[in-house]
Amino acid sequence: MKIKILFVGKTVDDRITSIVDDYLKRIKNIDITVKIVPGAKKKYSVEVQKSEEGRSIISFIDDSEFVAILDDKGDSFTSRQFAEWLERRQTASRNITFVVGGAYGFSNEVYDRADSRISLSKMTFSHQIVRAIFAEQLYRAFTIIAGLPYHHE
Amino acid sequence: MKIKILFVGKTVDDRITSIVDDYLKRIKNIDITVKIVPGAKKKYSVEVQKSEEGRSIISFIDDSEFVAILDDKGDSFTSRQFAEWLERRQTASRNITFVVGGAYGFSNEVYDRADSRISLSKMTFSHQIVRAIFAEQLYRAFTIIAGLPYHHE
Repeated sequence: MKIKILFVGKTVDDRITSIVDDYLKRIKNIDITVKIVPGAKKKYSVEVQKSEEGRSIISFIDDSEFVAILDDKGDSFTSRQFAEWLERRQTASRNITFVVGGAYGFSNEVYDRADSRISLSKMTFSHQIVRAIFAEQLYRAFTIIAGLPYHHE
Repeated sequence: MKIKILFVGKTVDDRITSIVDDYLKRIKNIDITVKIVPGAKKKYSVEVQKSEEGRSIISFIDDSEFVAILDDKGDSFTSRQFAEWLERRQTASRNITFVVGGAYGFSNEVYDRADSRISLSKMTFSHQIVRAIFAEQLYRAFTIIAGLPYHHE
């Protein structure tokens, strides 16, 4: 299983980029690539932005991939449940693409393509910070799967 | 209403400290102080660490304060619900202390003292990253209360 992470919008915060890189580097033996999907220009309406970004997101996804979008109205997991979910995905062995959206969420096109919707929280986080949270959560999941002593409950 | 935030354990990550400072600085007209509660030495067992940290935490809290601890088994809110909760606390006008715990959670002494338990997520986040998340959530709450255009649902 290869993992692709799509972040929508150029990260402007170097601190976040640096934290994300640190966590992803600590995940060993898994092929992870990160792609930045260009965010839509702010001069358009929210709906137009979402739909433009949606088309960009879809263009980064292959038909064969399993797509999980991060969405605060998605299924919520504990860290351990997320690890179990990820382990089941590994067994299914399709490549998996996680999509971490921009400021305004996803277009219907993206919702339609998504195989799974994952919520990190009922709260809305900044789309910058959510990248760091997700990278840490992915690292945490792999330490749980590998039985490493990182996660405490 | 004054707000005090207790972070347990010296932050070792400058990127997190910097993100936290940025968000808290953006909250205007509210008296917010941040205190670092020393974390317990790692050489002790988890239970001893928790109980030592618990005593330290309590020593930073005045009797009159309303204490809200961040706890993944606490009440979960959307960002808007958290803002509404905070606004009700403002009306009650007791000073409020938020406690963001260390790696191992809280001792029973802290649970007993807490007036409220707030969960940012069912997931367990790194106790470093959780500081950035909380600072951003507090800023977001005050923008919601003030009707500023920061939060999108």
